[in-house]
Amino acid sequence: MDMVELIAKKRRGESHTPEELRGMIRSYVSGDIPDYQMAAWMMAVCFQGMAPEETGALTEAMWHSGAVVDLSDLPGVKVDKHSTGGVGDTTTLVVAPLVAACGGKVAKMSGRGLGHTGGTLDKLESIPGVSVCVDIPRFKAIVREIGLCVIGQTEDLVPADKRMYALRDVTATVDSIPLIASSIMSKKLAAGSDAIVLDVKTGSGAFMQDLDSARSLARTMVETGRHVGRETVAIITDMNQPLGMAVGNALEVREAVAVLSGKVPEEDPLYQVCMLLGTHMLLLGKVAKDEAEARQKLQQALRSGAGLAKLQAMVCALGGAPGCLEDVDALCKTRLQVPVTLEKGGYIAAMEAARIGAAAQMLGAGRAKKTDIIDPAVGLVMHKRRGDFLPAGEPFATLYANDTARLQEAVETLRGALTLSAEPPEAAPMVYDVIQAGEA
Amino acid sequence: MDMVELIAKKRRGESHTPEELRGMIRSYVSGDIPDYQMAAWMMAVCFQGMAPEETGALTEAMWHSGAVVDLSDLPGVKVDKHSTGGVGDTTTLVVAPLVAACGGKVAKMSGRGLGHTGGTLDKLESIPGVSVCVDIPRFKAIVREIGLCVIGQTEDLVPADKRMYALRDVTATVDSIPLIASSIMSKKLAAGSDAIVLDVKTGSGAFMQDLDSARSLARTMVETGRHVGRETVAIITDMNQPLGMAVGNALEVREAVAVLSGKVPEEDPLYQVCMLLGTHMLLLGKVAKDEAEARQKLQQALRSGAGLAKLQAMVCALGGAPGCLEDVDALCKTRLQVPVTLEKGGYIAAMEAARIGAAAQMLGAGRAKKTDIIDPAVGLVMHKRRGDFLPAGEPFATLYANDTARLQEAVETLRGALTLSAEPPEAAPMVYDVIQAGEA
Repeated sequence: MDMVELIAKKRRGESHTPEELRGMIRSYVSGDIPDYQMAAWMMAVCFQGMAPEETGALTEAMWHSGAVVDLSDLPGVKVDKHSTGGVGDTTTLVVAPLVAACGGKVAKMSGRGLGHTGGTLDKLESIPGVSVCVDIPRFKAIVREIGLCVIGQTEDLVPADKRMYALRDVTATVDSIPLIASSIMSKKLAAGSDAIVLDVKTGSGAFMQDLDSARSLARTMVETGRHVGRETVAIITDMNQPLGMAVGNALEVREAVAVLSGKVPEEDPLYQVCMLLGTHMLLLGKVAKDEAEARQKLQQALRSGAGLAKLQAMVCALGGAPGCLEDVDALCKTRLQVPVTLEKGGYIAAMEAARIGAAAQMLGAGRAKKTDIIDPAVGLVMHKRRGDFLPAGEPFATLYANDTARLQEAVETLRGALTLSAEPPEAAPMVYDVIQAGEA
Repeated sequence: MDMVELIAKKRRGESHTPEELRGMIRSYVSGDIPDYQMAAWMMAVCFQGMAPEETGALTEAMWHSGAVVDLSDLPGVKVDKHSTGGVGDTTTLVVAPLVAACGGKVAKMSGRGLGHTGGTLDKLESIPGVSVCVDIPRFKAIVREIGLCVIGQTEDLVPADKRMYALRDVTATVDSIPLIASSIMSKKLAAGSDAIVLDVKTGSGAFMQDLDSARSLARTMVETGRHVGRETVAIITDMNQPLGMAVGNALEVREAVAVLSGKVPEEDPLYQVCMLLGTHMLLLGKVAKDEAEARQKLQQALRSGAGLAKLQAMVCALGGAPGCLEDVDALCKTRLQVPVTLEKGGYIAAMEAARIGAAAQMLGAGRAKKTDIIDPAVGLVMHKRRGDFLPAGEPFATLYANDTARLQEAVETLRGALTLSAEPPEAAPMVYDVIQAGEA
């Protein structure tokens, strides 16, 4: 393994063989390849990219760099779901229970929030008693019993990604499509599901700010799934405003419960994205034969309350009290509730989701660094969406805060996230594309 | 100093401010910036390059990263000379004494050989008694007394380059023009001379294999010299065959003595390059008012034996015996002298200087790694040059060896370095260009 020659090869724009990538990842995890060589190689990848087969081979090498979860003894097609990270994106808490209620099997390992994006684990743990630190046998037992479970990734999965991700973070090599794709897909593959539905966000609040990059990332991941024999579908959705109205941990649980209780209208973006994700999860899970049937089953699970019951069952299995979701308002109690207004009125032409996420983070809803402690109750609720008319002086959002340290900064950040116009803006799609193998 | 943002900036192709580069180099030398960040940044530089002002600012930051030599109390304009490294390039041992004999002041810190290229220090130390490890006061005293001194770089100069060079070597980031230029120029500047003449080699045996890269490197270094107020001239010379006929340490000393003794004809490439380098050193050193005067002075110093006397004086000052250069044949005594032939005859259309250097290295004349010990007497002498007709079975070179371990390998490598043709090849220039500030 001559790492200098491998770096030089990538610098010249040549492709690596699967053997080269396997050897590289093995030597990196064993410590034989130092961080400075991996950093140089990853920077070369940022400039030269990787061919689809290379990304596939890199993903495979990373996937097998540590422990893998074996779900094969669980009945049915296990379907995983992953979002590239957004603001107000509480889809997992809605769609996983709905899919389980329809007979699908969802065994999902999730992440914590970092920066302006939230994490499902933090949302779940805003419910008193819930812990997402569950071992694999218990995780599988919960899936077997109620059809779904969402837990934190165990420490021993994909060590290559842990080291590479930390290194990318400090070497300005985060935004490289093959590196993002292999990072996400290696973790999904190691988590053991049979099929994967990906939600790739695009827009001001997303990692992939333009549609072309989002589409390219989606295609790369779907192609990688095909390469390793795991059926993968990606939807590309809008992140030019928060997906839901709530941004904050308990606040998003409350919104998920509202959707599952049928209190959110069908034209709501969160509702729409959940239905689309759920449809593809049911199709990949062989629970529905076509989109119409899938959609009808999901609506039935929602209307009947079966989806909400599944979420409650999972929350109980993870340590929450029975019936705890019946009074989610109690979780969102904060000392201060501050309406935010603008002096001038107008149509909301644009909302910078990243800034809205940042405002919630300032109140304690998110982490600037991994070791920060979050306040589960704080955050914000938007009252308006892009395209709405906002009268002068009328609150467009309410901040939920427990201390005033960064309150004014959060108010200003939130105000700065809005752009008003005299005329209504052009309508923007919520879903841009669905990428499936073959098209990819 | 947010190094992640600096890496990201270079990755985007933007220019750094002098403050950013100063801070980066200071933090790297202090250990606050780890190797993996520097490696990522240098790989980004390989792809995005640096603007001339950036290369100048980087060079300045590196130059001042450690101790600097102060030659200001020595009378006259001190002129340094540097070659980017070649095979059979013994110009320093010829031109520095000639310049000193003409009244110039040459205070030069030199390097050891590595890979297929030789180093002046190893050549000097092939003379019994000579040591190039001399402290700065003694170095300056020798220059003051006899007008020239060549020693090894002291340990405390340009620590930034030491670390960056070692890191480039293991991260495939060696061949980047701004990184090469700042590495060379920071060391020359720290060594304290007032003016610098650079010999940039191009061709199969050189670091810059094509003329465009060589010209670009030359321009960058001349521009950097101008940026920091040190007059700098670069000549671009051919390295598609060894410069001299001898490759090996004592063998090259013998050849230098032969040139200084007037035994080498004026059309000889080594003679020509020495005259051109010497001319520009005398001009920059204000010892001659124009090229014709400079050339006439150099020829006079050669014919009179004054140049040879200067070399002998310096060798004595570094520990060699008086009169030791009178019998340089004694230094080249080896157990074996092996003529090398080809079965077929023809015109020598091409000679790969790198392979010729490698053959000499196999015999012990050079180092594969820094800790290798070299044999001062071994090496090879070419009998033919590119363009010559080589009759079948006639020796084109003689190997000087003390053991047979890699002798056959060296013979085959040397044979593989030649390409024969039925017709004489087109004549190739020895000197491609002279780059001066203003043109750069």
